[in-house]
Amino acid sequence: MKKQIAILGSTGSIGTQALQVIENHSDLYEAYVLTANNNVELLIEQARKFHPEVVIIANKNKYSQLKEALNDLPVKIYAGMDAICQVVESSPIDIVLTAMVGYAGLRPTINAICAGKTIALANKETMVVAGELISNLVEQYHVSILPVDSEHSAIFQCLEVNNSIEKIILTASGGPFRTFTLEQLQAVTKSQALCHPNWKMGAKITIDSASMMNKGFEVIEAKWLFGVKPEQIEVVVHPQSVIHSMVEFADGAVKAQLGVPDMRLPIQYAFSFPYRLKSSWDRLDFMKYNNLTFEYPDTKRFRNLSLAYEALSQGGNMPCIMNAANEVVVAAFLNERISFLEMTDVIEMTMGKTTFVEKPTYEDYVMTDEEARRLAAEMVITKMNK
Amino acid sequence: MKKQIAILGSTGSIGTQALQVIENHSDLYEAYVLTANNNVELLIEQARKFHPEVVIIANKNKYSQLKEALNDLPVKIYAGMDAICQVVESSPIDIVLTAMVGYAGLRPTINAICAGKTIALANKETMVVAGELISNLVEQYHVSILPVDSEHSAIFQCLEVNNSIEKIILTASGGPFRTFTLEQLQAVTKSQALCHPNWKMGAKITIDSASMMNKGFEVIEAKWLFGVKPEQIEVVVHPQSVIHSMVEFADGAVKAQLGVPDMRLPIQYAFSFPYRLKSSWDRLDFMKYNNLTFEYPDTKRFRNLSLAYEALSQGGNMPCIMNAANEVVVAAFLNERISFLEMTDVIEMTMGKTTFVEKPTYEDYVMTDEEARRLAAEMVITKMNK
Repeated sequence: MKKQIAILGSTGSIGTQALQVIENHSDLYEAYVLTANNNVELLIEQARKFHPEVVIIANKNKYSQLKEALNDLPVKIYAGMDAICQVVESSPIDIVLTAMVGYAGLRPTINAICAGKTIALANKETMVVAGELISNLVEQYHVSILPVDSEHSAIFQCLEVNNSIEKIILTASGGPFRTFTLEQLQAVTKSQALCHPNWKMGAKITIDSASMMNKGFEVIEAKWLFGVKPEQIEVVVHPQSVIHSMVEFADGAVKAQLGVPDMRLPIQYAFSFPYRLKSSWDRLDFMKYNNLTFEYPDTKRFRNLSLAYEALSQGGNMPCIMNAANEVVVAAFLNERISFLEMTDVIEMTMGKTTFVEKPTYEDYVMTDEEARRLAAEMVITKMNK
Repeated sequence: MKKQIAILGSTGSIGTQALQVIENHSDLYEAYVLTANNNVELLIEQARKFHPEVVIIANKNKYSQLKEALNDLPVKIYAGMDAICQVVESSPIDIVLTAMVGYAGLRPTINAICAGKTIALANKETMVVAGELISNLVEQYHVSILPVDSEHSAIFQCLEVNNSIEKIILTASGGPFRTFTLEQLQAVTKSQALCHPNWKMGAKITIDSASMMNKGFEVIEAKWLFGVKPEQIEVVVHPQSVIHSMVEFADGAVKAQLGVPDMRLPIQYAFSFPYRLKSSWDRLDFMKYNNLTFEYPDTKRFRNLSLAYEALSQGGNMPCIMNAANEVVVAAFLNERISFLEMTDVIEMTMGKTTFVEKPTYEDYVMTDEEARRLAAEMVITKMNK
């Protein structure tokens, strides 16, 4: 029996690489569902190649184009977020790969967990926004969350049967602006920020990496995935991105997972766990990466990292507020409406102004997300008018 | 019930550190047997402190001194190798730590395996000399060999339930002469060779490290411990000795174990496996070790490494021949009777001259060891007379 996989976000960077993994191991995996936000052309192409049972386009305006292009195929075609949230419950599905961007991942992930599906988690915002809620559901429905983030996959690979984690060491490339002064950061452009030194990724996460909000998110994600305290999570800048992350155990032993920067590995591992499959991609060459360096992150220049620790320590809906504000400011930065450093200012102010809820329900998260987005958007306009 | 531990070689570097582990976790472990080769003074001190059931001195000339010094204690006292070989079979013993030097470890290790004891293997020469025989016995008697060598412990810690090892990457410090030219190697002294840059160890293994014979031994040890082919074992020079070794899996993921150079960690892990115990020794500080480098080993300058691969590929009693010759030349070098580079010449010639046995029995190993030692000793004398 082939494992049936639902790829939420199949036209993005993770989604397309997941389809490569499925193609390489077509004896083991099948794409059961493919969904995209907007990129209908690529979704059509993928549907023709992989013959999923269901394809869904989130943007309803593109439904007829999709329907028309695939009307000779025996495939069910839907549109809209509601359809995505429902389809993950389909009984043939074994694994749901959550590879969409941002807060939008929350609802389908919750539905998939409640339907007992294994989650291959690429959408870290889900854990940032509602880590506690998700963790409770995971326990209640006895499902597994297998991390696809390269750092969390690395940590997951280092775990042991009788775990005794003392510390998690999250490595960070430091992004394209690692050596920039505050003055230089003031002036960085969108195209500079979109140029990550080690990883080729989607626009949102590339900006998050440049601002180190991505690493802040990963700290929060690690807390929920591995059940450690915030003070047990340390960020170490490692510009070569060869060590994908590490775990220090109670006896002082440190274990690390290393590799070339290729997201197909963590994707495949999430599909194949607890086994590993033969792969043909590049191997790590220690003569090429013959110098691995480490340095402290500078939270004076990259304040987002401190904000994330702060949000985690405050708890409640604070990480949700931070995430909502971040989604607004990244979109504004990509539209060249605010500057690189103004992003952090808006996030911090939004965290100060949005209604705090100590023990949020799902509905609280929805309302928090709306309120924080509204407030952040207003602040962006104020910044623009200055 | 405390685990009862027999420490063969309790006065050496590994033995004394093992006793520190036992002292730190005296609720879990007890020293049941302590044995030493010659160092009767320290053995007496250890017996007074740890109250073992049995103490044995290999050198029979020191028996009366030992007996007299401990006659107020309720401890059994023996002398000689036969006693050591017998005592490992005592039924209360759970773990036998083989921390003696050289070929002498073979017989007691075999006896301990046949008595169903867990082996904490610090005596790598046992696996070099008779890896196939030991592996067969381990299978036959269903015992575990837990590696204490820091490299093999690292590899062991990286293993998984569903192993799919593609490659083992053995790291090597490169020793004190890593950057020496052949001309410089010609002239190195005993005291230079005894000064290892990262590890404080006994004299024999320190010389083996300087000559890289130690790494050659470790390649052979890895082959037998982890069931891989010689071509799956790669040696990478990593002067900082922070990464203790690595495993590359079928999917290309590399896992590594890292730590400060402290043998108490692998010793303790061999005792506590599959658990880890809280320890208070130093943690790895990535800001102190902020630059990890890698380079190829140079088998033109360090020919011993090639000889070891050669011995492994020839199989049979060839690694046993190599080990016997090495024990002779290291003793000769420590007695300043031959030069550093002459050690390799004698080993190579001994490998060419000693009777080859394709499928050696235990008795063949004993005879091979005798023959190779005799031939190597003759060659040492010839070198001295030049």
